[in-house]
Amino acid sequence: MKNTRFTLGLAQLSKIDGDAGHQVIESLQEICPDLARFTIEYPFGDIYTRQALDLKSREIATVAALTALGNCTPQLKVHLNAALNVGCSEEEVKEVLLQMSVYAGFPAALNGMFAFKDVLNERKA
Amino acid sequence: MKNTRFTLGLAQLSKIDGDAGHQVIESLQEICPDLARFTIEYPFGDIYTRQALDLKSREIATVAALTALGNCTPQLKVHLNAALNVGCSEEEVKEVLLQMSVYAGFPAALNGMFAFKDVLNERKA
Amino acid sequence: MKNTRFTLGLAQLSKIDGDAGHQVIESLQEICPDLARFTIEYPFGDIYTRQALDLKSREIATVAALTALGNCTPQLKVHLNAALNVGCSEEEVKEVLLQMSVYAGFPAALNGMFAFKDVLNERKA
Amino acid sequence: MKNTRFTLGLAQLSKIDGDAGHQVIESLQEICPDLARFTIEYPFGDIYTRQALDLKSREIATVAALTALGNCTPQLKVHLNAALNVGCSEEEVKEVLLQMSVYAGFPAALNGMFAFKDVLNERKA
Amino acid sequence: MKNTRFTLGLAQLSKIDGDAGHQVIESLQEICPDLARFTIEYPFGDIYTRQALDLKSREIATVAALTALGNCTPQLKVHLNAALNVGCSEEEVKEVLLQMSVYAGFPAALNGMFAFKDVLNERKA
Amino acid sequence: MKNTRFTLGLAQLSKIDGDAGHQVIESLQEICPDLARFTIEYPFGDIYTRQALDLKSREIATVAALTALGNCTPQLKVHLNAALNVGCSEEEVKEVLLQMSVYAGFPAALNGMFAFKDVLNERKA
Repeated sequence: MKNTRFTLGLAQLSKIDGDAGHQVIESLQEICPDLARFTIEYPFGDIYTRQALDLKSREIATVAALTALGNCTPQLKVHLNAALNVGCSEEEVKEVLLQMSVYAGFPAALNGMFAFKDVLNERKA
Repeated sequence: MKNTRFTLGLAQLSKIDGDAGHQVIESLQEICPDLARFTIEYPFGDIYTRQALDLKSREIATVAALTALGNCTPQLKVHLNAALNVGCSEEEVKEVLLQMSVYAGFPAALNGMFAFKDVLNERKA
Repeated sequence: MKNTRFTLGLAQLSKIDGDAGHQVIESLQEICPDLARFTIEYPFGDIYTRQALDLKSREIATVAALTALGNCTPQLKVHLNAALNVGCSEEEVKEVLLQMSVYAGFPAALNGMFAFKDVLNERKA
Repeated sequence: MKNTRFTLGLAQLSKIDGDAGHQVIESLQEICPDLARFTIEYPFGDIYTRQALDLKSREIATVAALTALGNCTPQLKVHLNAALNVGCSEEEVKEVLLQMSVYAGFPAALNGMFAFKDVLNERKA
Repeated sequence: MKNTRFTLGLAQLSKIDGDAGHQVIESLQEICPDLARFTIEYPFGDIYTRQALDLKSREIATVAALTALGNCTPQLKVHLNAALNVGCSEEEVKEVLLQMSVYAGFPAALNGMFAFKDVLNERKA
Repeated sequence: MKNTRFTLGLAQLSKIDGDAGHQVIESLQEICPDLARFTIEYPFGDIYTRQALDLKSREIATVAALTALGNCTPQLKVHLNAALNVGCSEEEVKEVLLQMSVYAGFPAALNGMFAFKDVLNERKA
């Protein structure tokens, strides 16, 4: 029987990440279902359900962090989609990526922007 | 003669970072005034003056990125102050820091939170 | 009322980190008690209680990761203590730190070793 | 004439990494044979031959560090194989990867787990 | 009308990066022309035009930094080409990459060397 | 009996890092003399003695990498001194640090510059 955190987390994952989130969870089932469960329970069940920050601001924070870290392009793409899903405009997302040139350097900002170019092309297709 | 980017950047720096920003610039004058000038012109003159993203969202992005990178506490503290200066509530800043546990791990989130504790204590003093 | 994950996590934290862990939790109470709770529930309640890997191996993994990341010395010190608490010998811990010269470079290994020097001195005091 | 460190290192490389290690060394011969030699001499000749830590613990440390760094997937895959070669069970390796969600964030843990999925599939093929 | 920084930067980009640099700029035009412009103005217009350090030393610094960071292979390849373009010998570039094993670990050095292998093959083709 | 690599490495360490290098080695003797020995043998005995790149270029590479990584200030300070010791002018070192704003962001460049300010003050004292 699944607990409340899992149920709430799964609903929040659907709302934010849509199909992309479910594909990540699905792809973990064979190799490590507990990591799938923890990913739903802690980030989505515990954190993204909190009311103290709106989802748009949360996705701005996540896009900024993943662009700056620069070593997790698949997750960045999921959250570039998520940012658009929860109400960021394309222009706002680009500004966040652009701003990362200041804090993490131009290569990080360029790679973030190219990831967003892919995301926008995939959404059009 | 200072150019427009410098003038606009200096005004934006004052608005966002207040005294803390000026102290950084001041402390660079002896060692490398050109880095002080570039810091005003590019981040503050070129980027933070753009209208496509509000300052509150910009500071959320910066706090998230610097917390995730985890190797630039002095700059993180400047921007934790800046986030409060441009309209983030204490609770919103804490949520951004908390959320970084998901993307950069608990040590990064803890160190960000302890930096914010210092900042809040300094603002009260 | 505290949940089972919290109760189990707190017991595991005591077993592994001793006083140092409780000091971290305590120092979070004023600024963000929810981060304290999450730190107990997820890392210690969900992860460190799992049986599939012994605690000694878990601490070897944590010491290696924190040394390689190189930007979270306070947490590294907690886990250098923890490694000794759960049964690693001093020599084994030193080997892990030494080995990080291969994967994260000599500066990371040196800083890890100096942190361990501090930890050993504090334990003697 | 090859020195002792090289000879011992090459034997240790064969024992730990098997064919994957030799392929890395081979692929360096054309571009920079000295880097191939140093890779055998220092990590494998000097470090992995030391008796103070067993090979299983060494691979746990290496898998943890490379997963946390997150920017060297090819080397992580070599050492995910190596961990299995020297006696880690699949479950133990998964626990190390899972635990990295705490210290380096969920994206790092997810990418490590997906790399392990690839490794397990390649070993079955 | 383009400003002086842009004009100087574009000339410097051509001199250093050749076609590879222009392709990066071109690929940004659709998604974010302002990032293309900033990339020309600040790094190439403001920094690479300064006389206090020769271009060969600048490219040694850039190749070292990007190899150590390890999360921006496309930009590293552009600058491995650039290093050769401004007068580094192949041997000198290899030495810089080799030396990164000391400061960022063997995986970073290996990945840098494999990127250079690709670059040399592409230049021969 | 010390081997040739150690003897050559120690001489090279003295030439490049002077007293600061010896202090690092000395401070390791109590906690882990083997790490002291490896630090002399591999970086200084194997790498810095190679003729294919001059010492000035080597220190430019090291200063760039350590500034970009941003998590090893003590080692950066040793190499900021070393850069001056082997013939870099103050202006050249500042240019390398300044240039890192492009590749690792302004916080990394600022922290590098403040470390250099400390180094210059210590050399005057």
